[in-house]
Amino acid sequence: MMHFADTLAQKIKETSPVCIGLDPALSKLPEGITKDPAGVLRFSKGIIDAVKGTAAAVKPQLAYFEVLGWEGMKVFFETCEYAKKQGLIVIADGKRNDIGSTCEAYAEAYLSAASPIDALTVSPYLGSDSIKPFVDRCRKNDRGIYVLVKTSNPSSGELQDLPVGDESLHEHLAQLVESWSAELLGPATNLSAIGAVVGATYPEELKYLRTLMPHVPFLLPGFGAQGATAKDCVPGFLGNRTGAIVVAARSIIFASKGKDWQQAAALAAKEMARSLSEVLA
Amino acid sequence: MMHFADTLAQKIKETSPVCIGLDPALSKLPEGITKDPAGVLRFSKGIIDAVKGTAAAVKPQLAYFEVLGWEGMKVFFETCEYAKKQGLIVIADGKRNDIGSTCEAYAEAYLSAASPIDALTVSPYLGSDSIKPFVDRCRKNDRGIYVLVKTSNPSSGELQDLPVGDESLHEHLAQLVESWSAELLGPATNLSAIGAVVGATYPEELKYLRTLMPHVPFLLPGFGAQGATAKDCVPGFLGNRTGAIVVAARSIIFASKGKDWQQAAALAAKEMARSLSEVLA
Repeated sequence: MMHFADTLAQKIKETSPVCIGLDPALSKLPEGITKDPAGVLRFSKGIIDAVKGTAAAVKPQLAYFEVLGWEGMKVFFETCEYAKKQGLIVIADGKRNDIGSTCEAYAEAYLSAASPIDALTVSPYLGSDSIKPFVDRCRKNDRGIYVLVKTSNPSSGELQDLPVGDESLHEHLAQLVESWSAELLGPATNLSAIGAVVGATYPEELKYLRTLMPHVPFLLPGFGAQGATAKDCVPGFLGNRTGAIVVAARSIIFASKGKDWQQAAALAAKEMARSLSEVLA
Repeated sequence: MMHFADTLAQKIKETSPVCIGLDPALSKLPEGITKDPAGVLRFSKGIIDAVKGTAAAVKPQLAYFEVLGWEGMKVFFETCEYAKKQGLIVIADGKRNDIGSTCEAYAEAYLSAASPIDALTVSPYLGSDSIKPFVDRCRKNDRGIYVLVKTSNPSSGELQDLPVGDESLHEHLAQLVESWSAELLGPATNLSAIGAVVGATYPEELKYLRTLMPHVPFLLPGFGAQGATAKDCVPGFLGNRTGAIVVAARSIIFASKGKDWQQAAALAAKEMARSLSEVLA
């Protein structure tokens, strides 16, 4: 297996820096899909089929599977396995975090050698000993993580923008993430297996964070339903379309609630890829 | 159903402020327990039986169930249901967090009206709109949450102790949590359904955080294997044994690796309750 950042960069080159968020909320499933775990699996596979020629990655959101209980978790792993088989990079969005000994279990749950998942999002509030078990799996199993640095939601600033000396908390954290990233650089890209989540809804912060984390691949949520445009995402890239992937979920997967949901998702993903290609040219 | 903080206080009065962490790591399971989901369920039920006369609550740690895949999640919910039936307060330790729309799914997954879970731990890095869906379920379904404020692990200070003006980040957050707590006070206790996780491994911080959050019930991890003593926990309480529960996991559930694991756990839980009773007298 290749280094996570290198594999991702190769896949982006072949397709686009588009990552489709799989947020299969029961209440939003389109016509003809049953509102149960079987429906969620059918829908998720249908979206994967629709976007696989266009997107580099999918990002199944664990919350929407967990809300269906253990049957949802079964479907979650089946979705990840299906996406992997279709050649997509699989980023599990779980924002997991705990003390070191417990994080060993989370790391093994999602980033074991046998897991179909390529990367996991993780929350940083507990500091480096809660990150280390994930980093160990990145090294050992060629996986990746994305650490939450500056999130896309409206209240993200309540803690993340607090002033810590001359900088904000998220800027301080960004420098920690850059320091953690140094040991896991991909030979082809010089990018780390340790990535960062930076909301495309905050383009000014995104621009500055790019300078603070030159070796860190970015996951940029916020495109589409949350309001960020293709242009807002540009500062997250490193040139030549590398260094970042852009996530959209609702605006793609629920592009139509009718029977044409799959074609609509395919079209919306293509349009997203086109708009990014245009601004990144 | 009663208010979460009132129900918990009543249960503590009948038993003790002891909360047993259910961290059923496969590699540590005692003699005679199979290292699979069925074994984890048998072990978890056995610990619940052993401590139910002594402890007020159990805290199943999701990571140790998730690492077993969907079969582990099935066992997780079965464990919660069993504990609930035995009259224990059930605190799911998931440290969940996400943007508002996604947090709706997490809140419904663990704190729905039908859930056997009384309270969930949540991570605060995304700010108040990531907390609100949980608070809504606390109000509507009489559930509780514990927000991570100052965690028990060695690296907790890397972000949590950073200076924000005249205070630390965790002190700033503590005041936010106290402000969120105001609307959900229990009529019997005047304590909120919004609680805080404060590591007993940092007794000085614990003492000060008690003054910053007078209406917030505390969950105090760190007792036993992580090094905190009964005396270290005292500043977390509000007098008359109210306002806090103390968590121990490994030192209780793995008190013996032999066939006497259940008796050993029962004894260790009783000894923990006795030591807390002594210092709180």
